[in-house]
Amino acid sequence: MTLRTTLDFLLHDWLDTTGLTSRERFADHNRETIDAVLDTCERIAREKYAPFNRLVDTQEPHFDGEKVTLPKATHDAFKAYAESGMLSAAQDYDIGGMQLPYSVEAAANAFFACASVSIGSSLLSVGNANLLMAHGTELQKQVFAHKEFSGQWSGTMCLSEPQAGSSLSDVATRAVPDGEGFESDPLGARYRLRGNKMWISSGEHELTENIVHLVLAKIPDADGKLIPGTRGISLFIVPKKMVNAQGELTGVRNDVALAGLNHKLGWRGTTNTLLNFGEGKFPVDGQAGAVGYLVGQPGKGLACMFHMMNEARIGVGIAATMLGMAGYYASLDYAKGRPQGRPITGAGKDAAAPQTRIIEHADVKRMLLTQKAYCEGALALELYCARLIDEQHTGSAQDAEEARLLLEVLTPIAKSWPSEWCLEANSLAIQVHGGYGYTRDFPVEQYWRDNRLNMIHEGTHGIQAMDLLGRKVLMEEGKGLTLLSHRIMATVNRCNGIPVLAPHAKALARALQDVGVATQKAWSTGVPGEALANAVPYMQAFGHTVLAWIWLDVAGCALDNDPQQESLVTQGHVGCAKFFFHYELPKINAWLGVVQSRDLTCATFPEGAF
Amino acid sequence: MTLRTTLDFLLHDWLDTTGLTSRERFADHNRETIDAVLDTCERIAREKYAPFNRLVDTQEPHFDGEKVTLPKATHDAFKAYAESGMLSAAQDYDIGGMQLPYSVEAAANAFFACASVSIGSSLLSVGNANLLMAHGTELQKQVFAHKEFSGQWSGTMCLSEPQAGSSLSDVATRAVPDGEGFESDPLGARYRLRGNKMWISSGEHELTENIVHLVLAKIPDADGKLIPGTRGISLFIVPKKMVNAQGELTGVRNDVALAGLNHKLGWRGTTNTLLNFGEGKFPVDGQAGAVGYLVGQPGKGLACMFHMMNEARIGVGIAATMLGMAGYYASLDYAKGRPQGRPITGAGKDAAAPQTRIIEHADVKRMLLTQKAYCEGALALELYCARLIDEQHTGSAQDAEEARLLLEVLTPIAKSWPSEWCLEANSLAIQVHGGYGYTRDFPVEQYWRDNRLNMIHEGTHGIQAMDLLGRKVLMEEGKGLTLLSHRIMATVNRCNGIPVLAPHAKALARALQDVGVATQKAWSTGVPGEALANAVPYMQAFGHTVLAWIWLDVAGCALDNDPQQESLVTQGHVGCAKFFFHYELPKINAWLGVVQSRDLTCATFPEGAF
Repeated sequence: MTLRTTLDFLLHDWLDTTGLTSRERFADHNRETIDAVLDTCERIAREKYAPFNRLVDTQEPHFDGEKVTLPKATHDAFKAYAESGMLSAAQDYDIGGMQLPYSVEAAANAFFACASVSIGSSLLSVGNANLLMAHGTELQKQVFAHKEFSGQWSGTMCLSEPQAGSSLSDVATRAVPDGEGFESDPLGARYRLRGNKMWISSGEHELTENIVHLVLAKIPDADGKLIPGTRGISLFIVPKKMVNAQGELTGVRNDVALAGLNHKLGWRGTTNTLLNFGEGKFPVDGQAGAVGYLVGQPGKGLACMFHMMNEARIGVGIAATMLGMAGYYASLDYAKGRPQGRPITGAGKDAAAPQTRIIEHADVKRMLLTQKAYCEGALALELYCARLIDEQHTGSAQDAEEARLLLEVLTPIAKSWPSEWCLEANSLAIQVHGGYGYTRDFPVEQYWRDNRLNMIHEGTHGIQAMDLLGRKVLMEEGKGLTLLSHRIMATVNRCNGIPVLAPHAKALARALQDVGVATQKAWSTGVPGEALANAVPYMQAFGHTVLAWIWLDVAGCALDNDPQQESLVTQGHVGCAKFFFHYELPKINAWLGVVQSRDLTCATFPEGAF
Repeated sequence: MTLRTTLDFLLHDWLDTTGLTSRERFADHNRETIDAVLDTCERIAREKYAPFNRLVDTQEPHFDGEKVTLPKATHDAFKAYAESGMLSAAQDYDIGGMQLPYSVEAAANAFFACASVSIGSSLLSVGNANLLMAHGTELQKQVFAHKEFSGQWSGTMCLSEPQAGSSLSDVATRAVPDGEGFESDPLGARYRLRGNKMWISSGEHELTENIVHLVLAKIPDADGKLIPGTRGISLFIVPKKMVNAQGELTGVRNDVALAGLNHKLGWRGTTNTLLNFGEGKFPVDGQAGAVGYLVGQPGKGLACMFHMMNEARIGVGIAATMLGMAGYYASLDYAKGRPQGRPITGAGKDAAAPQTRIIEHADVKRMLLTQKAYCEGALALELYCARLIDEQHTGSAQDAEEARLLLEVLTPIAKSWPSEWCLEANSLAIQVHGGYGYTRDFPVEQYWRDNRLNMIHEGTHGIQAMDLLGRKVLMEEGKGLTLLSHRIMATVNRCNGIPVLAPHAKALARALQDVGVATQKAWSTGVPGEALANAVPYMQAFGHTVLAWIWLDVAGCALDNDPQQESLVTQGHVGCAKFFFHYELPKINAWLGVVQSRDLTCATFPEGAF
């Protein structure tokens, strides 16, 4: 099954994406225009991304003290991507966009992640610009966001600091008003920032003529103190090079300096940096301090950031998924071509017979089917979430509200599940290759290294789990969880009537109930420390239940269209669902056990006994 | 807990290794001599191995067409190891050995694997020489094995071929008698070999003045045909440089040529090679063909190899375990020193409070305790198996027979379990470090890369699983499995009487029963293809059950010595056991489900539907 076949089924047969074109915003689109976008992206990914995936791994970004050098292939890939118009795919026609549904944009971007996840880093620019479109002033949109959509400039998100990592409440970057009349700068209230930002992807490079940093910082109170916690955080635009109100470079460098490149396990095509803001290396108007323009209200910076979080996290989920998928395709290809060993038959092995291809061995098939079920299931989940974002943006008031609620609950899964299980898929892809998979002559080891990042960035696994069990399933009196349960039960009820799926439907209903019980028992004492001690096992069980639902729904759809399973596509979907229900869903009981007993074995383990 | 503390407890408190010194072979040893060996190895590992672990990762072996260059540190480490006498630790005094119990040798070697798994590759030389001690002629022992024990020469194992990988029955290397009088060469019947051998560790280097290759090859029949299957395989000594009967180099190069180095994901300090035997690059006596001396009987080569397999596989298990342990120590250290975030309390977080160290977060403790339970449990299993080898070599006839049977069943677990779960531990060690763990500034990413090899070499995961379910639990009418069950039940019965362990004992008894039922049901139709389709999930469940037993036994021993849990060591062991029984053992049901239903979802999945 090619990626395109899978995407076409999910987008059109399953999610009825074409149906969106009856809405005003997407009225100019139809199956043909959607196909054309996918065709273009598939081609660019094949020509400009895939051939250079190993190159960007071996030729890491290099800093000579002045400039960061990236391979020519990275420049070419960025240029091709920008020229495709994908940077502004979702934007209005009048600013040069395509008004494409987000679900189609996400599907189209999957080709690039599959071909070379780290050669491109456009998602951050798009997220950055989207944030400005939502929270910036008209001039901020024009000067900064529009230039990012065109690919002329690029963007970053500067949240983490070396001493604080995930703990944003400890952000120590300070922003002070930049002298008299600071409020009246046309680009936004003007501040000077000082601090260090860590893990900043694409924080320095020469791909674009300017870089638009979006920076979280705190404005000190009258006593010069920073407000503790996240309430004190504000958001600023800090351009690498100063610009005027017409969006032209003024020729002055802003006081943002690269302190160093991070040398990573994988994902090496993308520069990752430690940036010093305002240390005085590039004084502006003779003064140290990076010039930054306030976005939105002071103290509301994190809320602006979170507004973009769902799409960013779905983006990470898709990246993790497509790395898994790339490994799946590579190992499938290898298994079809590699002769080795003989099948086990009732009569034993015939040593004189020619070797069979390894895809004929049951355990190799198990490893391939596991990868397929993980990765195609994850892709379905990501596109489902992307479709919810379309609903949130263009659906009826009630549909939009339901989409919002579902996204609250599903986003931690969309981010975490592929990060964990498509990484496992990458490990299986290595295993299928045997010793060859452990060499750098085959691509699978790089996929595995690249994918290891996804459980860490954009909120670690632990953070996602706390978000899910500590906030999302509780918020608004559990409305999101209730709504998800209704959706799951709708699938259960529909598939109860399809004989081949009925046992799975029953298993899913039971799993859903188990998750519900565990949720209640986790919180039954009302003590966060007890409930959240096993937040990760909870998230694992929740994720597997969601994926079981996705597979049941996908298989149900496939069987609706092809009840006799005449096509291999249908057989593939039904087989994956069966695999997931037989091999994967039963795993949830072990995870839920510790959740519902509020097991404190780990939490109370004495430090000295480690 | 330091590695030394853990080793001391396992060796002395748990396995009563000192008790072995009452046996004649070990009569000169006592706790002090054992401590001295551990002290020496700990010191050499700290001084000559650990500081260069990153170096050997970044300065890979380099081949200039003539010689393979390794970093000076690798030479120094090899020299220090050889000078310690550890190469011949288990050998008789009269050939310069220490007559050390294997369990002590294995424990001592753990320090090296923990410090730098790939800088040293002595295990292969020892295995090679041990094989010759068991199957070689007196002269073969003197000329080849003794020089390997002294470190003057080193050894390899040449099994795999590029076209055959795990499928040894397809070995295509040919060995033909080397002219008249070939049988009467003092070094053994003399053949000429031609063929290619892949994945040969330490196949070429300048660490030693000669390299002793042990090569599997087939002797053609009268028609020049190779016998199909493994029956046709013979074993040969093929020295890199020709030697005379006195063991002196004759100055003639043998016809073994390095065809290329493999460039690997990890484990980069050890050269891994493709070797061409007999291609004519270095003709001997004007003739192409690598000169090889037969070891043992023609056609019995694989049996000789398998003789050494248990120790080789325990060696891999220890390597995997110690890589996991190295990651555990690194992440524990990091978690104790890194401040970030605040603990969750009933009253919510106090944003103004100082940050706590991350070891105080429940999820970080969960990740640390998981690593500890995986790695210390695996270490206990490996030492238990090593102790069985001592029993096999020096125990009473009945004890030796029981040890042999137990090793048959346990070796696939000793090899596979740490390869899978201590790799998972390495992933958790990265996760504890957050973004820093993904950089090459910290050691954990390398441990994870290094450890990925262990599920592949010395018999892949799939091969181990087929060995376990297809051979080991069935052989000799299931005697091995029955004996293991008795040992497990003995632990269950003993721990039933210890209140804090009684619930675990019950859980273990049930797990054992579940494994037994699954074994029967898997084979109830007698069709290998049905039984073995889920051999890997079977091995996973079997392995988790074995580890639960190990933890229960270790905890029982700790509580026997310290019933009030006054020491942190006891608290650690009891806590790990509790963790394993609460978080890990319940996982077996999902694995066993597909085994006992003989699930063929994967095996029957149509190739075209992938």
